[in-house]
Amino acid sequence: MRMPSRVPATGLPERVTIYEVGPRDGLQNEKGVIPTPVKVEFIERLGAAGLRTIEAAGFVHPARVPQLADAEAVVDALDLDAGRRYPVLVPTVSGLDRAFSRGVRDIAVFGSATETFSRRNLGRTIDESLAMFAPVVARAREAGAGVRGYVSMCCGDPWEGTVPIAQVVDVATRMMDLGCTQLALGDTIGVGTPGQVKALIEAVVSAGIDVGSIAVHFHDTYGQALANVLVALQSGISTIDSSAGGLGGCPFAESSAGNLATEDLVWMLEGLGIDTGVDLGELVSVSLWMAGQLGKPCVSRTVQALAGCAQVPPGDGEPAAVAR
Amino acid sequence: MRMPSRVPATGLPERVTIYEVGPRDGLQNEKGVIPTPVKVEFIERLGAAGLRTIEAAGFVHPARVPQLADAEAVVDALDLDAGRRYPVLVPTVSGLDRAFSRGVRDIAVFGSATETFSRRNLGRTIDESLAMFAPVVARAREAGAGVRGYVSMCCGDPWEGTVPIAQVVDVATRMMDLGCTQLALGDTIGVGTPGQVKALIEAVVSAGIDVGSIAVHFHDTYGQALANVLVALQSGISTIDSSAGGLGGCPFAESSAGNLATEDLVWMLEGLGIDTGVDLGELVSVSLWMAGQLGKPCVSRTVQALAGCAQVPPGDGEPAAVAR
Repeated sequence: MRMPSRVPATGLPERVTIYEVGPRDGLQNEKGVIPTPVKVEFIERLGAAGLRTIEAAGFVHPARVPQLADAEAVVDALDLDAGRRYPVLVPTVSGLDRAFSRGVRDIAVFGSATETFSRRNLGRTIDESLAMFAPVVARAREAGAGVRGYVSMCCGDPWEGTVPIAQVVDVATRMMDLGCTQLALGDTIGVGTPGQVKALIEAVVSAGIDVGSIAVHFHDTYGQALANVLVALQSGISTIDSSAGGLGGCPFAESSAGNLATEDLVWMLEGLGIDTGVDLGELVSVSLWMAGQLGKPCVSRTVQALAGCAQVPPGDGEPAAVAR
Repeated sequence: MRMPSRVPATGLPERVTIYEVGPRDGLQNEKGVIPTPVKVEFIERLGAAGLRTIEAAGFVHPARVPQLADAEAVVDALDLDAGRRYPVLVPTVSGLDRAFSRGVRDIAVFGSATETFSRRNLGRTIDESLAMFAPVVARAREAGAGVRGYVSMCCGDPWEGTVPIAQVVDVATRMMDLGCTQLALGDTIGVGTPGQVKALIEAVVSAGIDVGSIAVHFHDTYGQALANVLVALQSGISTIDSSAGGLGGCPFAESSAGNLATEDLVWMLEGLGIDTGVDLGELVSVSLWMAGQLGKPCVSRTVQALAGCAQVPPGDGEPAAVAR
């Protein structure tokens, strides 16, 4: 397997945690419901490829998100003592009860930086959503669980347009005040650019949130995700979300691009001399297998490059007659 | 047309020149020869969309690169006094005679950082290629032309693997010593990562080459191009190569990704508060039109996002029931 040359850059974290969201965020908007055994195999193969933190399921209302309705069955099939973390989405106390009954030890609640998306996604205002999360976070913390707090639409909103940084900081601060142990800043529609990401992180850190507790979650809708990761790393962030194969096309843009692809992230991190523990060849195999299950091509550039003609129309493999 | 929020970052150039390579680098490896009027319309529409520097043709051996055999006809159809620059590839004195006979005022020679690619692309060792370029550069400079010197395979080579930075610096220095007015560092196979790009630029600048005379040329084979551009901007580089729609799939990797897409670059630059003068909506229209001419989809993430369902399978446009 070809790998990048390793040339470290100064000023970056020595260690990075890849928070894999493919099995949950990557799959949840797929139209056809994916069989539970396929999801379980996907998660297990991602773990075998070296990913240590894999968001595995969502204990949300089954009727609202049919794709996640098998959360219990998915979690039951996983070995929760295998040394990996399998966080799950949990918006409500009843969801928390469901999750805890299966032995879950890491959860995530998901708020929004904008009122419009909060109402559309949760049927609640931001205030109401935080009130809903409060007992979830409190009880999870009492039980010793890790609690991630997502803030969606941090760099723009399809209905509201520009999202003021102060508004993101406000929601982020309130999420952390509830007791979240990690904050995930989400550019849900992938519109953000590096200056914006840098300013956002600086503002959140200035508000008193420890940079070590911040994760970033980018979508590659406009091709900006990896540049945004770079500036986040330069800002001290050491937890990066990504999705195997780039699964998870943004439902708000008519784009084939989804979450930042884990393979593209691994390529950059390894090139920067940051060990990921991921076997890139194995991961590419997993993503190609999953693409086959979904019946559509894999959008990750790195998968396309490494997978060769199994994935894309064959080239002739011969050099051109003119350099470029 | 949706545009990114503008949040400038410190330490970046105030102005950036986009060096558009779509009509030459983007098209030269297309199998079917594209009619001259299509190439001319492509170039003119790119200019109308606001691009000011467009590599328009290559005065190379017509039998070796049939796609570029109509260089005279392409250049003859352009208005060379319209305030744009239309550099062309010229490897030999006879090519220079051809180019000058059509009124060309900017040329490019193209060397390689590796012996293998030099032999395969030019049929010459590096020393022999530089000897071939010497009279071309000298005569072009005497005539007052601008001369770009490409160095290919700066971050890796498909046959030689890792390319030592010292080797790139050596070829770059010799190209500039010939009299080139601009150096274009090319990651021809798209394997480079930001630490490598930063180290490469620092090494070239340390060797005495003015940072203002350096351009960077990235392929998006592994999805790294825009992150590499960001670190180049942070290193003081202010000339960035890109290709409308991401045309120019790398012939050395079985990837659908080609050059960095101009649209993805424009999105980042505008988001960083750097005016590009490009009308993004117009540019997307041009790329979609050209994709139609070529009969294949456009790989630019930004084009896919902005073009909507004309380009990719339609989504339902409705928000998901769970945030991500």
